[in-house]
Amino acid sequence: MERYYPVVRVFGVLLMGFALAMLVPLVVSWSLHDGAESAYDEAFLLTFGTGATLWWAARREKRELKVRDGFLMVVMVWSLLPVFAGLPLILHLGVSFTDAYFEAMSGLTTTGSTVLSNLDTLPLSINLWRGMMVWLGGMGLIVLAVAVLPLLGIGGRQMFKAETPGPMKDSQLTPRMTQTAKGLWAVYAGVTVLCIFSLRWAGMSWFDAVMHAFTTMGLGGFSSHDASFGYWNSPLIEAVTIVFMLAAGMNFATMFLALHGRSFQPYLRDPEARWFLGVTFASVLGIAIYLWAMGTYPEFMTALRHSAFNVVSIATTTGYASVDYNLWPFFAPLWMLFLCSFVTSAGSTGGGIKMIRAIILYKQVYRELLRAMHPNIAWPVRIGDNPVPHNILFAVLAFGFMYMASIVSLTLLMSLSGLDIVTAFSAVVASINNTGPGLNQVGPATTYEILTDFQTWVCSFAMLLGRLEIFTLLVVLTPAFWRR
Amino acid sequence: MERYYPVVRVFGVLLMGFALAMLVPLVVSWSLHDGAESAYDEAFLLTFGTGATLWWAARREKRELKVRDGFLMVVMVWSLLPVFAGLPLILHLGVSFTDAYFEAMSGLTTTGSTVLSNLDTLPLSINLWRGMMVWLGGMGLIVLAVAVLPLLGIGGRQMFKAETPGPMKDSQLTPRMTQTAKGLWAVYAGVTVLCIFSLRWAGMSWFDAVMHAFTTMGLGGFSSHDASFGYWNSPLIEAVTIVFMLAAGMNFATMFLALHGRSFQPYLRDPEARWFLGVTFASVLGIAIYLWAMGTYPEFMTALRHSAFNVVSIATTTGYASVDYNLWPFFAPLWMLFLCSFVTSAGSTGGGIKMIRAIILYKQVYRELLRAMHPNIAWPVRIGDNPVPHNILFAVLAFGFMYMASIVSLTLLMSLSGLDIVTAFSAVVASINNTGPGLNQVGPATTYEILTDFQTWVCSFAMLLGRLEIFTLLVVLTPAFWRR
Ligand SMILES: [K+]
Ligand SMILES: [K+]
Repeated sequence: MERYYPVVRVFGVLLMGFALAMLVPLVVSWSLHDGAESAYDEAFLLTFGTGATLWWAARREKRELKVRDGFLMVVMVWSLLPVFAGLPLILHLGVSFTDAYFEAMSGLTTTGSTVLSNLDTLPLSINLWRGMMVWLGGMGLIVLAVAVLPLLGIGGRQMFKAETPGPMKDSQLTPRMTQTAKGLWAVYAGVTVLCIFSLRWAGMSWFDAVMHAFTTMGLGGFSSHDASFGYWNSPLIEAVTIVFMLAAGMNFATMFLALHGRSFQPYLRDPEARWFLGVTFASVLGIAIYLWAMGTYPEFMTALRHSAFNVVSIATTTGYASVDYNLWPFFAPLWMLFLCSFVTSAGSTGGGIKMIRAIILYKQVYRELLRAMHPNIAWPVRIGDNPVPHNILFAVLAFGFMYMASIVSLTLLMSLSGLDIVTAFSAVVASINNTGPGLNQVGPATTYEILTDFQTWVCSFAMLLGRLEIFTLLVVLTPAFWRR
Repeated sequence: MERYYPVVRVFGVLLMGFALAMLVPLVVSWSLHDGAESAYDEAFLLTFGTGATLWWAARREKRELKVRDGFLMVVMVWSLLPVFAGLPLILHLGVSFTDAYFEAMSGLTTTGSTVLSNLDTLPLSINLWRGMMVWLGGMGLIVLAVAVLPLLGIGGRQMFKAETPGPMKDSQLTPRMTQTAKGLWAVYAGVTVLCIFSLRWAGMSWFDAVMHAFTTMGLGGFSSHDASFGYWNSPLIEAVTIVFMLAAGMNFATMFLALHGRSFQPYLRDPEARWFLGVTFASVLGIAIYLWAMGTYPEFMTALRHSAFNVVSIATTTGYASVDYNLWPFFAPLWMLFLCSFVTSAGSTGGGIKMIRAIILYKQVYRELLRAMHPNIAWPVRIGDNPVPHNILFAVLAFGFMYMASIVSLTLLMSLSGLDIVTAFSAVVASINNTGPGLNQVGPATTYEILTDFQTWVCSFAMLLGRLEIFTLLVVLTPAFWRR
């Protein structure tokens, strides 16, 4: 048991810090008298108390976290924080534990699917807390993506660390995390502030601007309105949001370098960014033409406007909607779900397998074609000028395979529980990619409320699985991990 | 151009041989006076004439086929033979070229999906020809699976050649093919004869016994009745057919060794056979319990009977149906489609990625889990006692990825053309796995007739792609293949 003390100690500290974040909606609730005050003070006490107890119980173990502790740490954070983050929802709204856990998992993994309806009538502080979960989840993700997962070597992540600013030599977890994270967090926070002012300028209320800046930068997709962006029906607000969604869908390390050097050069040199923008723009245009040709929107410019916002929203795994695209001819939303599985960059707050892995998978398949023709020639797979080592290729291929196998098996499970195939498949894809809305019964005009408890847990699991890039979670679920 | 002459010459000879096979339905048609005689003599003349012309044009080039010629040869055979095999359908039934090509491709790839209806009223000789296409396709497959694809190194196939009887040293294509093929063809033909007598004994007419023995051993699934095995509604016929479908779903090389040594030992030592039988039996039982629990069949034995026949039929990629399982609760047919994508053995006449690849994929993923925990330990992937070399692992992983990518992209294409998602997805899966019936509009109680010409061509392409194990076809479609 004692070997887990360092993890427990750090987790306790983190939980105390997370509890402090609950003071923000508490203060807001107090000052607005929105009636939800008591939810936060109880949630704060429970969370802070648990954190303090864990820290106190494990305080004597001063050993630093090792790489292997990272697996347990990451899984603990993302599977247990939602228990506490969901407390205000249980305490104030009286939702079930299943639903509160789902909603909090959806927030902290920046998925943004919801089981709550009548969002417009919720206390402001509850919506603020929903937005904050996404934003804090996004902060966690940046550390996860840029520092932790590469160290754990998940799905070939060690390959991507060259792009990270700051020193990376230490094999201990904590200093590395803090050093790397600081610069990126500053960028993340700065751009969020810019986003708040831009949304306010475009026409949102201050409150909505803050909440939607949080859920835009985390690519989360929670809204304070049932109609999501349909509430404003404003091309300007949509345009501003598109810009920030695109920014958050690319590597924050690239943004750091670009801001630091006051130059767009880092984006031009980033192979993920090029493909991300190319595929996204081409899809926006293609879907616009398709919708126009199918007669969904008689005006091409209307088709382009709705295609631009909704395609960018789903492709970047944000999950806002400005219209009910579930009613579009079926190919359009299917293509959007396809995009969200791979277009975002590895160091972004987006979900899916990430563009860099899609590029490596493509190159590896092409290499196998060449090798079938010329078996005796070596064909190294390259990213830029660097050949990709074998162990990275294996990790990426196994990741790609497990990603698809997870979708297949979870879809089978959802179907076994009685869901129709479109709902089952789209709920799994939207959850594992941390996108948010699916299709049919869980489409953009509805919520995940219709799911049974079992199906809700499957979706919570899928969000966690996708966010921890499958292997982090599977490693901890392997008996071999707990031996010795 | 002249570098392709050896391929053209061999293809010409093969085409002349294939034309001779058309004499069988011609003789049958003559003796039964079923009115289709003129279809076969014209088809025979066209096919034999084309073959003779090709052979004559390229006859001077005496060079033996090299390994690289194998790609072109295989693609030519499976993409051009259906043009000729479909001629009797065009000439006698007046179906379109699109439909005739589809039906012939479906037969020669042993897929067994049909665009024809009113099968019971077709001339017997036409149904015989449909059965013969499957049976001849199965013969071709055995050579393809046991001799050609391993030589071309498709999807890690070179790994599986240890299981093949006969000498394997020659790097020239022709002697290797003929030597290996002879023993296996003898087994295939012998078991087919046994199957004919067994089906006759179980209650089929002689004609039906012959046709269904053909389509059982080739795992093709064509029937002479619209109701497929629902026509007989006979547990005995179903039981007999199950035995032969299972036999044909395992490696014919294993059957060769078992018959040769008069022992079941080779099956016990064959890792694919163990998993094939285990997964299939477990699924039969599981689906029976599911159907019984869902109230589809109030009697458990009825549920077991229908589960046994239909699950084995789809899992082995045969494609017969004894009931309309499209009406079963959705999880059951979804699971059956899932099974048909991987359970059959590499040296069988079945489709899908094959059990050996599924095992390697599983082991590779498990290895990545272990490697995430202990990055510095070597974890070789083993099949039996042999470590699997890196190039095989890469080939299998790339194959698994391309297989899923093909399903995704072809489903998107079918959906773009206007099909609902269940029909689009199931048609693609049933075609690429060479299984036959899909779900919904292309379910077991209907045919592929409802598809548009474009959708029909997509399915023909998917059947070809699956049968040639994707990479064989992709290599030939690569510009690099045609250079120099
Ligand atoms: K999202
Ligand atoms: K079949």
